[in-house]
Amino acid sequence: MSDVPKSSKIGNNVVLEEGVTIGEKVVIGHNTIILKGTDIGNNVEIGSNCVLGIQPSGNQRMRKIDESSKQLIIKNGTRIGHGVSIYSGTIISQNVFIGDQASIRENVSVSEETVIGRAAIIELNSTIGKRCTIQTLAYVTGDTILEDNVFIGPCVSMSNDKYMGAEEYTLKGPIIKEGAKIGNNASLLPGIIIGRESIVGAGSVVTKNINNYEIVAGVPARRIRS
Amino acid sequence: MSDVPKSSKIGNNVVLEEGVTIGEKVVIGHNTIILKGTDIGNNVEIGSNCVLGIQPSGNQRMRKIDESSKQLIIKNGTRIGHGVSIYSGTIISQNVFIGDQASIRENVSVSEETVIGRAAIIELNSTIGKRCTIQTLAYVTGDTILEDNVFIGPCVSMSNDKYMGAEEYTLKGPIIKEGAKIGNNASLLPGIIIGRESIVGAGSVVTKNINNYEIVAGVPARRIRS
Amino acid sequence: MSDVPKSSKIGNNVVLEEGVTIGEKVVIGHNTIILKGTDIGNNVEIGSNCVLGIQPSGNQRMRKIDESSKQLIIKNGTRIGHGVSIYSGTIISQNVFIGDQASIRENVSVSEETVIGRAAIIELNSTIGKRCTIQTLAYVTGDTILEDNVFIGPCVSMSNDKYMGAEEYTLKGPIIKEGAKIGNNASLLPGIIIGRESIVGAGSVVTKNINNYEIVAGVPARRIRS
Repeated sequence: MSDVPKSSKIGNNVVLEEGVTIGEKVVIGHNTIILKGTDIGNNVEIGSNCVLGIQPSGNQRMRKIDESSKQLIIKNGTRIGHGVSIYSGTIISQNVFIGDQASIRENVSVSEETVIGRAAIIELNSTIGKRCTIQTLAYVTGDTILEDNVFIGPCVSMSNDKYMGAEEYTLKGPIIKEGAKIGNNASLLPGIIIGRESIVGAGSVVTKNINNYEIVAGVPARRIRS
Repeated sequence: MSDVPKSSKIGNNVVLEEGVTIGEKVVIGHNTIILKGTDIGNNVEIGSNCVLGIQPSGNQRMRKIDESSKQLIIKNGTRIGHGVSIYSGTIISQNVFIGDQASIRENVSVSEETVIGRAAIIELNSTIGKRCTIQTLAYVTGDTILEDNVFIGPCVSMSNDKYMGAEEYTLKGPIIKEGAKIGNNASLLPGIIIGRESIVGAGSVVTKNINNYEIVAGVPARRIRS
Repeated sequence: MSDVPKSSKIGNNVVLEEGVTIGEKVVIGHNTIILKGTDIGNNVEIGSNCVLGIQPSGNQRMRKIDESSKQLIIKNGTRIGHGVSIYSGTIISQNVFIGDQASIRENVSVSEETVIGRAAIIELNSTIGKRCTIQTLAYVTGDTILEDNVFIGPCVSMSNDKYMGAEEYTLKGPIIKEGAKIGNNASLLPGIIIGRESIVGAGSVVTKNINNYEIVAGVPARRIRS
């Protein structure tokens, strides 16, 4: 069991593995599991039934794991809901909000004041800017870049494998520039660049890059205004 | 620990906070957490690893929380699966079925005999009628109204914010009238009215209101029959 | 409590119900619940907060439950993530990988070396071949058949009820032939046959059968090459 400051409050049946660091005024719900090498800042709130600091795993058909992924860092003032899972090798910055049942993989960076919705998933090696909103059930694939102030609507889907496993391909997620907004249930293809302050309509399928300030919609997505 | 009637059966490592009320012949699975102010009727079955009675939370970038959300009420004969999360300020009526990993936010009302599928999400301030079916992974956004006997297919997506956070907007979910059926993975825009006993085809994107008894499909959805 | 071989390692607060069989060199994370009648082979790894061996449940509006679903079998070398739920009456073969928060229903068979992604859902009575990849948040409806080497992209949605509950209908999921690939967020209608080594583009809505080796895209999906 790790040292817990007196100002922090830990629920029932919580597991804190060796080498976990807990800041001041932290609140942790019941049945939450914090695995070794997790570093939790001050004023962090964590719900019940979470698993934090997971070491990556896989089988022989999956991509090789970076064994150097060692630590999960959660900075001051961040709030994490119930049933959330976060991997090691990831940094969650100050004042981030992570909804219930969300999950965040290894080697991800989430910047200040970003909101990650309920059951949203951020895959490995992704970089999420400041003050982004990633809504409920949105899926951010591996190797994705979101600049600051990006809005990802509910149920948005992304992919990073052009050949769906059939050929060798360097996996590339979308690159979404500052202030862009993606409507609910839109689909983004691998490596697509979404321009600054552009808007993608709900349910669109984006197969080509989108210029800055452009508004697109449809299947495939076409410019409707700019 | 609350008083538990002898006819009720509580699993291992269950947390029942102060002021929780448990009816007769209730079954609660292992590791489930029931937070203060939750009122559970007779013959209710609850699975393992649930968190019930969650107080709303947020950060400064999210909408203001109604601090008056005080109690979660679950009425007689309702069955709740494993890993489910339900917030306070919500009423779940008699004989409702809630699948595993579903989540239901604060200030929601779910009426008799409705079925909520596995991993489906009902956001805050929504009203769900009687005998509705909300299938697996469906997303019901905040401020949505479903009348009675509505069918929401798997992976249906809804939105309630016309400007995706860019401008002030009174959030409006869809209004779905009695007996309407929405096909799997369809997308509904904010404030859309879906007419009585109308049908929306799978994968459609609904951008305009739909009349009673109309059948629509496509992107954007157009009438194919009525 | 069941007999656990000395070579196996069980986390804190784990519940092993009566009649559970645990093989050699098994690792089980914290707070995981293994219900009666579950049979776990050698070298299996299971994460935290899982519920395995769930007996089917329902309410009077749902389809009748097969009460003969008695046992969950997990074969040698399989790895299961955190927060996973699996029902009884299901067989998971050797060296399968199941991501966090995935769920698999009763009477399902998953063959060797298949990868099931994070939060993916496999509904009841489905048959999944060898070396398939079912990506994150994909939804495999009930009564679906996947042959070997099938690729299902992230957020793919399927349905099995042509009349959405309005008429009597024998539920039929899609049949996806060997080596077919389905792009992210595509929608498949009930009973559709997807031909051998065919490709379905991201975001497509598949309303008709697809021939072997055909490439289709769009809403509704049309042939773009073969």
